[in-house]
Amino acid sequence: FPEFGDASISQDEEKKYKFDFELGVATYTLRKFSQEEAIDMTLRCGVNRIAFKSMHLPLESDNETIKKTVALCKGKGLILYGAGNITMETKEQVDQAFEYANAAEMKMIIGVPSHELLEYVEEKVKEFDIKLAINNHGPGDKLYPSAISAYEKIKNMDKRMGLCVDTGHTQRLNRDPEQDVRDCFDRVFDIHIKDVTLAKPEGGTCIIGRGVIDFVSFLKMIVDLNYTGTLALEYEADSENPLPGMMESLGYIKGILATM
Amino acid sequence: FPEFGDASISQDEEKKYKFDFELGVATYTLRKFSQEEAIDMTLRCGVNRIAFKSMHLPLESDNETIKKTVALCKGKGLILYGAGNITMETKEQVDQAFEYANAAEMKMIIGVPSHELLEYVEEKVKEFDIKLAINNHGPGDKLYPSAISAYEKIKNMDKRMGLCVDTGHTQRLNRDPEQDVRDCFDRVFDIHIKDVTLAKPEGGTCIIGRGVIDFVSFLKMIVDLNYTGTLALEYEADSENPLPGMMESLGYIKGILATM
Repeated sequence: FPEFGDASISQDEEKKYKFDFELGVATYTLRKFSQEEAIDMTLRCGVNRIAFKSMHLPLESDNETIKKTVALCKGKGLILYGAGNITMETKEQVDQAFEYANAAEMKMIIGVPSHELLEYVEEKVKEFDIKLAINNHGPGDKLYPSAISAYEKIKNMDKRMGLCVDTGHTQRLNRDPEQDVRDCFDRVFDIHIKDVTLAKPEGGTCIIGRGVIDFVSFLKMIVDLNYTGTLALEYEADSENPLPGMMESLGYIKGILATM
Repeated sequence: FPEFGDASISQDEEKKYKFDFELGVATYTLRKFSQEEAIDMTLRCGVNRIAFKSMHLPLESDNETIKKTVALCKGKGLILYGAGNITMETKEQVDQAFEYANAAEMKMIIGVPSHELLEYVEEKVKEFDIKLAINNHGPGDKLYPSAISAYEKIKNMDKRMGLCVDTGHTQRLNRDPEQDVRDCFDRVFDIHIKDVTLAKPEGGTCIIGRGVIDFVSFLKMIVDLNYTGTLALEYEADSENPLPGMMESLGYIKGILATM
């Protein structure tokens, strides 16, 4: 198994850039690995924010398990800022998601609620003061293919109802992720960064910088707009050995940011 | 073992930048791996140039073995542009190095000849029309600590006598690699890119972008000067599992270049 935590890979080096946003990892990327491995691989990427997919912290976990996990992350210098993608098709699933996020002191749920549950979700957002970030999944997603389709549903709701824009799924619709983030910016709470091989439904996920998305322009835009959320890498390729592709992707992003 | 050659990691994607230089790998980086693994890992990095260290193609190899290896590289889309670092302390070692490089149709030898052998090496450079690129190794290297120290020895010799500047070893001398490349530019045939944690002898090698070298400025300089050689990654950390650090390093370089 990879030699995690090699001392030569410093985690506390001075940041080369100072922006209002942070880099992180969405752990669907690490779906074949345990919670401990997912944490270690995220640390090895040199980022400080993580959002768990349920295999790394099951939604039905008891409070004690959740608190232990949060403490583990904190102890390792990682902020467990959210969880997702969480499907919400029933009120019970909404309740569970918010109780889970509340126990974990998360700032947001990255999720996909049924359209008819949006008002119920809004109640929970107000009750717990936890944001909802609706995650768009591109062609084939009947609920929220584009960020705009989600924005239209929530733009007049509580200001904590918002979006987690997925750059790759947006590009697969042949939409410009930069323009969509601009157009929905007041409700963009989270961004899943990924690149794709084609601006078509059949575009596959690939290492950032090797695909068709113009991340130079995209990053300039979020810097210009003073984005304050997370750029969370969701790297879907190489599920058995994602670390090299994750690290090239994040290296590419850091390289661009180093020029700004 | 890592799932090399995943189809999702495209090798033939359109280049995002167009410069006169190329990216490559110096296989000392991959010293714990076989020749085949070194080739596959280099390909996975998405670069097209490789320089073998002797464990990947022994200096005493017969011509048939050398030709087979060259054909293998070509077949996989890799240019075997050089070999090194090769120590040359006797005339026999010089002869062997040039016969080896000649059989492999290499353009250059990255090497460290004794000072008293430099004239003999110059004869061989002329005889074979193969360049010599002297590799500086920083504090502790009695022959060529800095690029400048090598440049002083060869600047009046045949124009194919030159340098492979190591950015990390240069920085460990608390010299500026950008300035040294500028000052020796007419003889810079190859560059070993690496980052280090400190501008001191005890600085350790680290992922490019996480150390102290300003690669934004360095890359602007080589673009401005129209460098036509190779930027060869020599990543010395994580010898048992170098691929993640290699790929973040190259991602960082590619990210910076994407902005130019």
